[in-house]
Amino acid sequence: MIIDCHGHYTTAPKALEEWRNRQIAGIKDPSAMPRPSDLRISDDQLKESIEANQLRLMKERGSDLTIFSPRASFMAHHIGDFNVSATWSALCNELCYRISKLFPEHFIPAAMLPQSPGVDPKTCIPEMEKCIKEFGNVGINLNPDPSGGHWTSPPLSDRHWYPIYEKMVEYDVPAMVHVSTSCNPAFHTTGAHYLNADTTAFMQCLTSDLFKDFPTLRFIIPHGGGAAPYHWGRFRGLAQELKKPLLKEHLLHNIFFDTCVYHQPGIDLLTRVIPVDNILFASEMIGAVRGIDPETGHYFDDTKRYIESAAVSPADRHKIYEGNARRVFPRLDRALKSRGK
Amino acid sequence: MIIDCHGHYTTAPKALEEWRNRQIAGIKDPSAMPRPSDLRISDDQLKESIEANQLRLMKERGSDLTIFSPRASFMAHHIGDFNVSATWSALCNELCYRISKLFPEHFIPAAMLPQSPGVDPKTCIPEMEKCIKEFGNVGINLNPDPSGGHWTSPPLSDRHWYPIYEKMVEYDVPAMVHVSTSCNPAFHTTGAHYLNADTTAFMQCLTSDLFKDFPTLRFIIPHGGGAAPYHWGRFRGLAQELKKPLLKEHLLHNIFFDTCVYHQPGIDLLTRVIPVDNILFASEMIGAVRGIDPETGHYFDDTKRYIESAAVSPADRHKIYEGNARRVFPRLDRALKSRGK
Repeated sequence: MIIDCHGHYTTAPKALEEWRNRQIAGIKDPSAMPRPSDLRISDDQLKESIEANQLRLMKERGSDLTIFSPRASFMAHHIGDFNVSATWSALCNELCYRISKLFPEHFIPAAMLPQSPGVDPKTCIPEMEKCIKEFGNVGINLNPDPSGGHWTSPPLSDRHWYPIYEKMVEYDVPAMVHVSTSCNPAFHTTGAHYLNADTTAFMQCLTSDLFKDFPTLRFIIPHGGGAAPYHWGRFRGLAQELKKPLLKEHLLHNIFFDTCVYHQPGIDLLTRVIPVDNILFASEMIGAVRGIDPETGHYFDDTKRYIESAAVSPADRHKIYEGNARRVFPRLDRALKSRGK
Repeated sequence: MIIDCHGHYTTAPKALEEWRNRQIAGIKDPSAMPRPSDLRISDDQLKESIEANQLRLMKERGSDLTIFSPRASFMAHHIGDFNVSATWSALCNELCYRISKLFPEHFIPAAMLPQSPGVDPKTCIPEMEKCIKEFGNVGINLNPDPSGGHWTSPPLSDRHWYPIYEKMVEYDVPAMVHVSTSCNPAFHTTGAHYLNADTTAFMQCLTSDLFKDFPTLRFIIPHGGGAAPYHWGRFRGLAQELKKPLLKEHLLHNIFFDTCVYHQPGIDLLTRVIPVDNILFASEMIGAVRGIDPETGHYFDDTKRYIESAAVSPADRHKIYEGNARRVFPRLDRALKSRGK
């Protein structure tokens, strides 16, 4: 089985975006604020948006199951206040839940949180618990910068975030550390902000003793870990200067990298540098890079091709494709086992 | 000849830091503001600080000449106003100039600029011209974020920066795009902010047509280009979506990467992915990572070892060590030729 741990619902029917635009207009003009029930997307519309897109590509490329969360760049936690984020998160999470019910063999949900800049993260817990307990979510996406590129939140090692971590540990769900749209003109969203956030989150963990406080907390750093694997020597050296343990001990019981690296040399570096137990298959399709690589004739984000060509043993490839995801997402493993898989 | 294009004066006598601390105190209490002439560092002190450190390691490791600029993390452009930055830059640049006169075979200067957040970059031009015309500087360091981690400046593609670029073109000097200390608690200076800035600067160039306006402008992106080479497929794909030319045409006449990547797999990726004409040897020693790698028994920042072991031909290695630096820094080439080298 091939599990893609990083998929977003980027192909939702236009009605979702229209509802969101009305919601944004409603921030300034409360009379224009739509009700959640104003959003009407039928099961057939959901099916069509998935069958023609993600599911088609999964079948073409040969992956089986996607951990599916709301579109990352649309989370836009910087827009409005907590209530705006809470309503928006609930709608988006419900769509992913419905997709998981429509395609139980192929999609299992992970939740976005109703984060809002300057608001205590513990306000996210009701939505998080609902998604886990009622909607069968197996993970969450945690935005380390809900300001959208201004980085006004404390580092992930700060006690500010502990309420979320306590619930993650309680429910045994990991978080993918994933920012949303940049509203800082210095940072292109998918070309700079995403990768910077990955590197930043990794270093925030490195400089701290977060995982002493939460030995079972698990983060997936997406986009192949940002710059971390390429600069693994730098990070090993910085940890040494900071008198931290070796990275393997200090971070790699708790931090995992996905394979959203869109060329063969990048995946080759990832699999050479990072222990195989810390690598989870992912493609983030249909996402930031949707085109065909003229150098290969294949989609940039068809990451399975790179894993197939990487110098890893069949047993290790199985870990990357399935074994690690089952270990890092125990609720996924349980859901699969309950279906005899 | 082996030219290290990325060295900073990180080992200055304590008197420099003490003067700076007095200057910072003087921002609040003008009666405490030191005069530039209060900083007294003798030639013997300069010699000792270099001979025992950078020059010793250059001889041990086998590099010949370092392009030498003031300590990057001490630029701290966010401190004080333009006048504070101007006085501090002048002092720091003068020290690097003096070192280049004391060790003309081994050091040639590159200038820091008196940038200050919110101040027009054209205010930097007098210091820049002095350094080039009187002090023989062959390059400059340009900070894309003088706020120190708050990223309040326009992207490098904005006309805001054009006065600097016009002078760079006029004098035919490249800029290393290098931030300074982060005062944003989200970003560790050398573990996150430096690498993020490299990635950010690269993407700012990618999304723009800056090099159409300045076809001969040249940037060195340090630290192996941040995350760019590891995610080269992502960047090629993003350029394609943005209807830009292939990166080779769009950016690689103007953008170069140094080799400050502190492990063999990283250098192997860099030399595999990036055309050899765009790679310049560098170590940034004595810098962010000063320890010995327990996996190799050698210094992390002894990057020459990685270049020696990389799968590149002798002719290509010569380009990385010398040829490219002479091409990207024409004033360096002229200075060397005037000495018969």
